Amino acid sequence: MNHRMSDTTSSNGARSRVRGVIPGSRAVSSMQTQQPGSLPEFQVDPYRLIDDDLKDVYDDIRLELVRNTSQEELKTIATYYFDGQGKALRPMVAILMARAINYHKERSDLLASQRQVAMIAEMIHSASLIHDDVIDQSDFRRGKPSVNVLWNHKKVTMAGDFILAIASMMIARLRNDDVTLTLSQVVTDLVQGEFMQLGSKETENERFAHYLTKTYRKTASLIANSAKAVAMLAGADDHLADVAFQYGRNVGLAFQLVDDLLDFVSSSAAMGKPTAADLKLGLATAPVLFACERYPELNPMIMRRFQEPGDVEKAFEFVHKSQGLEQTRFLAKKHCVEAARLAQSLAESPYQKGLLVVSDFVINRMK
Amino acid sequence: MNHRMSDTTSSNGARSRVRGVIPGSRAVSSMQTQQPGSLPEFQVDPYRLIDDDLKDVYDDIRLELVRNTSQEELKTIATYYFDGQGKALRPMVAILMARAINYHKERSDLLASQRQVAMIAEMIHSASLIHDDVIDQSDFRRGKPSVNVLWNHKKVTMAGDFILAIASMMIARLRNDDVTLTLSQVVTDLVQGEFMQLGSKETENERFAHYLTKTYRKTASLIANSAKAVAMLAGADDHLADVAFQYGRNVGLAFQLVDDLLDFVSSSAAMGKPTAADLKLGLATAPVLFACERYPELNPMIMRRFQEPGDVEKAFEFVHKSQGLEQTRFLAKKHCVEAARLAQSLAESPYQKGLLVVSDFVINRMK
Repeated sequence: MNHRMSDTTSSNGARSRVRGVIPGSRAVSSMQTQQPGSLPEFQVDPYRLIDDDLKDVYDDIRLELVRNTSQEELKTIATYYFDGQGKALRPMVAILMARAINYHKERSDLLASQRQVAMIAEMIHSASLIHDDVIDQSDFRRGKPSVNVLWNHKKVTMAGDFILAIASMMIARLRNDDVTLTLSQVVTDLVQGEFMQLGSKETENERFAHYLTKTYRKTASLIANSAKAVAMLAGADDHLADVAFQYGRNVGLAFQLVDDLLDFVSSSAAMGKPTAADLKLGLATAPVLFACERYPELNPMIMRRFQEPGDVEKAFEFVHKSQGLEQTRFLAKKHCVEAARLAQSLAESPYQKGLLVVSDFVINRMK
Repeated sequence: MNHRMSDTTSSNGARSRVRGVIPGSRAVSSMQTQQPGSLPEFQVDPYRLIDDDLKDVYDDIRLELVRNTSQEELKTIATYYFDGQGKALRPMVAILMARAINYHKERSDLLASQRQVAMIAEMIHSASLIHDDVIDQSDFRRGKPSVNVLWNHKKVTMAGDFILAIASMMIARLRNDDVTLTLSQVVTDLVQGEFMQLGSKETENERFAHYLTKTYRKTASLIANSAKAVAMLAGADDHLADVAFQYGRNVGLAFQLVDDLLDFVSSSAAMGKPTAADLKLGLATAPVLFACERYPELNPMIMRRFQEPGDVEKAFEFVHKSQGLEQTRFLAKKHCVEAARLAQSLAESPYQKGLLVVSDFVINRMK
């Protein structure tokens, strides 16, 4: 489980996966059994739906960063990953949710503050990527050298801090106390999730719970809390805000589970990085934890973080021999179905349908 | 100019400097010429004055950090510097200012929110110390091994981020938009100040302005903005809030100037670290910049950050041969006089007198 996997992209640009034919209608058809009458329109492209809201998000983030410092090098490092080459999952979910909730509440336009939340979510995400780069000492991200290859770790750490600080100021400028509290929680979660990943000393029994908590904190909390924030800005009551939060939480968990799965199946070319990168980083993600139930030989390897020669290869093999990958996909699917159920509780609108498509996309993406 | 100097302490504990006889009444006597009638009471001990407010600040910070994570090691690292051994300058100024402004506004008690600001200020400061430790790779702080000696840099960086994240949540819980904005600015300033220090490429003419901006951002902004925040919480109007801000700004600048000066004159024993540490870190602070006016030979050394053999020793000598130290003290004194003038514009109270004593203490401290 690490952020890098969430952000690899094809050479055709980030959005091609969704802009083309939406794959995996089978996955969604299982959701339809719950509400057979409300057939999602599979042709809905969530990116095209909110293209006007989304197209300048990266430019606007860069502008916000650049106008808050006169340090040229800080500008360069801080804006490095806001190149429009990411899949923009977080702003996309935030804006779709904002528009779906607005429709539900019979409001019309996207609020400026909601769009700000979309920007803030991407900024917090990128700052965490930058800190991950330093921590993992990775060389490559999104088809280009990662920041830590180009600048020393002091400057990179500071640039990440700078993005977080500007995001904090943008949060403050929203002037909504509950939203401020909601978004403030995210960084606390991210840091704790990262910390859990650095030194896991839990027992075998605690391990899966530990992994899920870590996954919530490192990935799902940001998506969940930014979905909740845009709902609150629309004047959602506690129940409705929680629908938004739970949608984001489930999509986030599923997204990371699939990421962890793809690390075992995608080719290096598709992922933009070698497979089994998590094992090489010493991380035991869902596929390994499931495999361990069948092959307890994995236990000592997990405990020593796959550091002995041959550990990575053996663990990789055990995962493929076991049902680990299927079980991981099944768990991810469960979360996607729950996300879709929550989206279906909102008033029917193109944006609500977009949320359904996103939950489908998350489980069926191939890279 | 670096934070470490701000936080060395004698073996007798941090507050002995102020709890004893207050030195330097001469320094204040120059201020008295401006308002001869209002003689400050030099026996006022600002720490004793607000002892009840201040005594549990560190315990409360530790409590706040500990209850927000279940990660034992994160708790240990994050609370490491909140051991009550620092001089607590930032919370002290915040609380004194809060009480002085409350008195001025004919309010009585310290507000809970104002005390929170004092805690937040110390937390932001400590987080920046922790990030400094990683960046400077220092071994020793406040008479004990620094965090980066005891834990690896990933964990230390994360612990600093965690403290900042909890501070952000506490800021959000104040539920005062203007205060949130004011305090959000501080981290942006700190990061930029740190960044300016990492890579200064300015020309000779820009150098002093660059140094002062850096000093404001790295040291004075936190003290200024927390003073402003407590004033705002007391319902201060813009003018009064600016008095508080400017007091903090001037005290902060003077404090750092004196720190930079002490780096050239204090013995290793008194500072808890070797002298001329800034030169060794490649930093040209006020004494060097003043010395450079008299000895232009310093220019190339400044440009190469004192990296050639003998540079540190030669620069040290030039500073002592020049008027650099006197000029630095003179500039610091100017800021202290200005701080005192601002404090004197507040209604007379023990706390207002405490603010005067602080400005006196800053210019006259010996370590």
